Amino acid sequence: MNVLIVHAHPEPQSFNTALQSTAVAELTRLGHTVQVSDLYAMRFNPVASAADFGERANPDYCVYALEQRHGVAQGTLAQDIQDELAKLLWCDLLILNFPLFWYSTPAILKGWIDRVLVSGTVYGGKRFYNLGGLKGKRALLSLTLGGQEAMFGPQGIHGPLEDLLKHLLQGTLAYTGMSVLPPFVGWHVPYLSDAARQDILAAWRTRLQSLDAQTPLVFPELSPDAL
Amino acid sequence: MNVLIVHAHPEPQSFNTALQSTAVAELTRLGHTVQVSDLYAMRFNPVASAADFGERANPDYCVYALEQRHGVAQGTLAQDIQDELAKLLWCDLLILNFPLFWYSTPAILKGWIDRVLVSGTVYGGKRFYNLGGLKGKRALLSLTLGGQEAMFGPQGIHGPLEDLLKHLLQGTLAYTGMSVLPPFVGWHVPYLSDAARQDILAAWRTRLQSLDAQTPLVFPELSPDAL
Repeated sequence: MNVLIVHAHPEPQSFNTALQSTAVAELTRLGHTVQVSDLYAMRFNPVASAADFGERANPDYCVYALEQRHGVAQGTLAQDIQDELAKLLWCDLLILNFPLFWYSTPAILKGWIDRVLVSGTVYGGKRFYNLGGLKGKRALLSLTLGGQEAMFGPQGIHGPLEDLLKHLLQGTLAYTGMSVLPPFVGWHVPYLSDAARQDILAAWRTRLQSLDAQTPLVFPELSPDAL
Repeated sequence: MNVLIVHAHPEPQSFNTALQSTAVAELTRLGHTVQVSDLYAMRFNPVASAADFGERANPDYCVYALEQRHGVAQGTLAQDIQDELAKLLWCDLLILNFPLFWYSTPAILKGWIDRVLVSGTVYGGKRFYNLGGLKGKRALLSLTLGGQEAMFGPQGIHGPLEDLLKHLLQGTLAYTGMSVLPPFVGWHVPYLSDAARQDILAAWRTRLQSLDAQTPLVFPELSPDAL
């Protein structure tokens, strides 16, 4: 299958970056085709603005989602958005690989979401959740954080990590129609021994070998009559 | 009191921008002092990177939060971060005013959070939630979205909006120690009549007049012994 890894870490030597390169190696070894969008290396522009549209539906007043629809219809989206959108539509599996910043992605990856998940292709009108434009694809978060696993979950001070990630798991990935696999989480990373980090990389390879056996998370569904 | 409004909308004529200017006018009329960080107008840089640190704790390997702590201690954070951090520490009330993009802030505002909420001042070690560095301040989201209110809440397809905003309400604002007031939400904005928009602005003025009567949301608390 075709895999797009969107990677966003400011330090090329980071353990998070090792998760990305491990995924490239393991998925390639398994016979898959992999593309990587390394957003820091690309100096990706994360700021959604009127400059994203070569031609405007309304030159005097920018409603971003409406201009996205117009840009899709006319083929006038900015080139960097078109390039990323082509990769997204090409892939069967999207992996977002990032360090958790404030229970979300770093801003550079948030900007990839804002600019590339365009209305008109990815969603629009009543095309969302199981009727979304990316139906048939799978999505997977692979993330690292400083917190310990015991601080999350029913007994943890923060509550379940998946609740804090609902905006991404449900509100972004599932919203577009993708099947969302349970996140792969590297806990407590800055404080781990090298051996413990190697264990995480091994667990990551195992996850990537067994994608077809993993049950997607459950999210709201629209009736097909909604269209 | 001192109020900082951090505003992030790409269209200066937008209704969301009218929420911001209405807040400035109403809060000033009530005798408060207001500063605005209009991130699009400022061309704020949202990308957290090693370039944020004039001097490095570790020049060879950037752990962003550790460099933040070093930058705070040495006074060597990038000037734009220092400027925003000074406004944040000055304020008694922080208002984040933005259009909802993928159940979160636009990337330019996510980058303000990533870069300005620095470890060492805002949080760090066991200083979070009720022990956080911004204890004593209040925070309020004012946001606009296209969705209708009926699509949220217990009967709605998406579930409660506050669940989708948990990463911001709990994971960001409450995490820093701030008291978080219930969000002010402008629903279904692109589809409203001008009269309906005026009603929202009136409701916003009323909210701003009655801040002291509003009960903050409830979030996890650490025992003071945790420190």
